[in-house]
Amino acid sequence: MNTHDLVRELREPADTKIVLLVADGLGGLPLEPGGMTELETASTPNLDALVRDGVCGLSTPVLPGITPGSGPGHLGLFGYDPLEYRIGRGILEALGINFAVGAKDVAIRGNFCTLDASGKIADRRAGRPSNEKNASAVAKLRTIKVPGVELFVEPVREHRFVVVIRGEGLGDAVNDTDPQAVGVLPLKAEGEDAASKKTADIVNQFVAKAVEALKDQGAISGVTLRGFARFPKIATFEDVYGLKAAAIAVYPMYKGLARLVGMDILDPGQTLHSQVDTLKKVWKDYDFFFLHYKYTDSTGEDGNFPAKVQMIEKLDAVIPDIQKLKPDVFIVTGDHSTPSKMKSHSWHPVPTLIAADTCRTDEVTDFNESACLRGGLGQFQALHLMLLAMAHAGRLGKYGA
Amino acid sequence: MNTHDLVRELREPADTKIVLLVADGLGGLPLEPGGMTELETASTPNLDALVRDGVCGLSTPVLPGITPGSGPGHLGLFGYDPLEYRIGRGILEALGINFAVGAKDVAIRGNFCTLDASGKIADRRAGRPSNEKNASAVAKLRTIKVPGVELFVEPVREHRFVVVIRGEGLGDAVNDTDPQAVGVLPLKAEGEDAASKKTADIVNQFVAKAVEALKDQGAISGVTLRGFARFPKIATFEDVYGLKAAAIAVYPMYKGLARLVGMDILDPGQTLHSQVDTLKKVWKDYDFFFLHYKYTDSTGEDGNFPAKVQMIEKLDAVIPDIQKLKPDVFIVTGDHSTPSKMKSHSWHPVPTLIAADTCRTDEVTDFNESACLRGGLGQFQALHLMLLAMAHAGRLGKYGA
Repeated sequence: MNTHDLVRELREPADTKIVLLVADGLGGLPLEPGGMTELETASTPNLDALVRDGVCGLSTPVLPGITPGSGPGHLGLFGYDPLEYRIGRGILEALGINFAVGAKDVAIRGNFCTLDASGKIADRRAGRPSNEKNASAVAKLRTIKVPGVELFVEPVREHRFVVVIRGEGLGDAVNDTDPQAVGVLPLKAEGEDAASKKTADIVNQFVAKAVEALKDQGAISGVTLRGFARFPKIATFEDVYGLKAAAIAVYPMYKGLARLVGMDILDPGQTLHSQVDTLKKVWKDYDFFFLHYKYTDSTGEDGNFPAKVQMIEKLDAVIPDIQKLKPDVFIVTGDHSTPSKMKSHSWHPVPTLIAADTCRTDEVTDFNESACLRGGLGQFQALHLMLLAMAHAGRLGKYGA
Repeated sequence: MNTHDLVRELREPADTKIVLLVADGLGGLPLEPGGMTELETASTPNLDALVRDGVCGLSTPVLPGITPGSGPGHLGLFGYDPLEYRIGRGILEALGINFAVGAKDVAIRGNFCTLDASGKIADRRAGRPSNEKNASAVAKLRTIKVPGVELFVEPVREHRFVVVIRGEGLGDAVNDTDPQAVGVLPLKAEGEDAASKKTADIVNQFVAKAVEALKDQGAISGVTLRGFARFPKIATFEDVYGLKAAAIAVYPMYKGLARLVGMDILDPGQTLHSQVDTLKKVWKDYDFFFLHYKYTDSTGEDGNFPAKVQMIEKLDAVIPDIQKLKPDVFIVTGDHSTPSKMKSHSWHPVPTLIAADTCRTDEVTDFNESACLRGGLGQFQALHLMLLAMAHAGRLGKYGA
């Protein structure tokens, strides 16, 4: 039995509220063996107070050694097995620009390229055009019509854009048309099954019409397409947990991931403080609140250890404002680790705390990687975090008599 | 490969004895953050001595956040995946009154109700009759015959009784006949498949005959039936582990759960001391002994923290008597936690110790929740405990060459 069916069977109504605060890329590494991580270096009196009366541990996003992207990292935290639910690249790209992908959509990543007189690829990135040139070329692509479907074209940046095909019975088992080489023709799209052949046929029409439409766009003279992906079949958060959920995220990708599972997407402005203000405003309207904080990840990706420390301290500073709302369950975690030392996402387990009345408190009084290793949650799968959230919220009945 | 097949493949004979002492609902919570649990408060010199020379950890009964009933809790300890083996309500009710359900049985929970002149339900619980009135009505129901099957009717208490239908080819996909409302007729039983239609037909005959049979029973004038459940298809303990197993439990439910997996059910009287006396008496006759102690759970359910502490201390007092028998493997655990603070079963992991010659001893010298967090078994699934028991008993060979 999968955990979603189990939750549907056991869940009980309760007038309780859960806050899931995700500090993206929270976990880190010491720069030298025996040194301190970013979280161990940061002064975090408020998180420490929270963990003192709560319970903590280390969350494994997917499996030991597996480094997740943002998609699998968040799906795991939302309780969707990231090895079962795979979100295609086209869908992630569309989510990343806040395009509202829907159930009938196939989303595709596009690159502008330069074609020579014989139609062969001369530059796979069309000389990396400015965002302005990108927008101009996208406007041309938007004039293209293909019978039987709706087409959407959205700029990303430089040579990158997104195409969404909306229609009935479309498949996504379609090859990339980018041959990953110059001096050769773009590949024809082919579909592996009837539904994907339908998509491939539409794609080939679109690509041919694109060459026409881009005639006056200089180095931008053709397109390649890749990462064909249907909107995934995924049960909504409300269907699984019976929770009315709001996403309070600044960046489009995380709004998009929350939209995938059917959360309401709020517009909290651009700062952590405006996110917390939004939380206060909608506190009565929802059962579950997903707050996303980006800068622990981006500073880690930059390899900027002191900046990541500072961003952790900024996060710590807003904790009391959230506590004042008296959430029944307050969870602080990350979707993965992003050690400054590695300048990238990593597989290392993620410090996680749960604060709730029903916690079996442990000896831990500091919130960081070393301390969480001694925490009462032990090392656990991110996938199980929502079960614990539901249990502490009094929203799960007994399994069996 | 499931663990049962693995055990069947690897198991080896050995002249060793395993004691599994289950303190029901053993795990607890501190009343205040940072305080002590019931087990941490109790003085347990004998359990502490046992854990000092053994190894300990925390057992997760089902999954993090999932609170098990007694059925799933014990199945896990016996090494049967509680998410795979589900014991229906009717079967659990029959086990709870110590009815020896068998492979051809469908067990059903019954309620006496009051019907009005038109046959509609006037009182779903027939005015909550005394146990004496219940027994009198049950005696009437026992006169009912339905061709082709054997019928058993057993009193539970007040308005509740159990019906067991014994026969060939009976299904249990049958709806409850209780409409959960008054002023309406009881529902007809219907079966979802051929076998269940056969059961439904028998049930409808039984219900009609019951109205006749109950004519002189006052407020008890009808019956509703629910929780139809076949005896589960479940491999016996001896088949899986090659262990001759005895259950030494006081309460019917736990005798029943042991009977489900084919253990011999002994009659140890009513006290912990008489249970240990029984253990001594049959020591030579079995390889495996399941001892069940109820009062750590019932005091927890009562929300009586000091009483639970006292019950733990009473359990501790009999430990030396069990040790004198020199079991090769001595396990002390619980089927779930029952924190006095919550007055209910909970999902929190359960302190568990194994004492055996082959233990890799850890630093732990106290048997309780906090200490077990530092134990050598770490946090593990209850489902794997029997593998450890078999290994420490020298009853599992090498897997692969």
